[in-house]
Amino acid sequence: MFVTNRDNTEALKTPSGKSVWWLLSKEIGTPNFEMRYFEVEKGVEGKEEKHPFEHEIFVIKGKGIIKSGRQEVRIQEGDAVYIAPDELHQFFSFGEEALGFICVIPKGCEDHLKKLS
Amino acid sequence: MFVTNRDNTEALKTPSGKSVWWLLSKEIGTPNFEMRYFEVEKGVEGKEEKHPFEHEIFVIKGKGIIKSGRQEVRIQEGDAVYIAPDELHQFFSFGEEALGFICVIPKGCEDHLKKLS
Repeated sequence: MFVTNRDNTEALKTPSGKSVWWLLSKEIGTPNFEMRYFEVEKGVEGKEEKHPFEHEIFVIKGKGIIKSGRQEVRIQEGDAVYIAPDELHQFFSFGEEALGFICVIPKGCEDHLKKLS
Repeated sequence: MFVTNRDNTEALKTPSGKSVWWLLSKEIGTPNFEMRYFEVEKGVEGKEEKHPFEHEIFVIKGKGIIKSGRQEVRIQEGDAVYIAPDELHQFFSFGEEALGFICVIPKGCEDHLKKLS
């Protein structure tokens, strides 16, 4: 068993300005998927992304929008979001506090976000 | 993209008395892993479990203990927990509010919890 807390984990900045905390990664032995916590500050718009693997997301706090092509979906605490492989997606945060969410991916797919940008 | 909210999702009871909300499951197309939300009421002790797949957990609210053999770890909001395949584990909730956590598993491993017990 491995236990950590978000507050004991280093936050890194992604190229698009999100903060990411790697909570459960292949480096501690996870065999299939990795769990991260993200925050997007008010007014920050992530870049539009598309990649061949999925995201499974759970929103912890804040308010935001996920855009996918012409589609826009508002998200808030308690929402779970599935973004399929090869689906366009872009995050926007508009609440007073940062938009915070858990995001799980297949292991090894975003190793480039494990280093300081 | 698929979006749901925990509050719009039916809660089921597990055989050991936890409540489970299936948020993102293979039934909506997830290719690799499934996301659920669990609550364990104060004083409820889940049964000791062991199975050949992992859990990746993020604690949303409440206070609890995870026991694994002789090991006991206190958990609270913001904690992330990795339980490895074949590792014993048992949840206990002792806070005033229910212990609530996200739990991600490889797809298809706990289909027996998708029906009313």
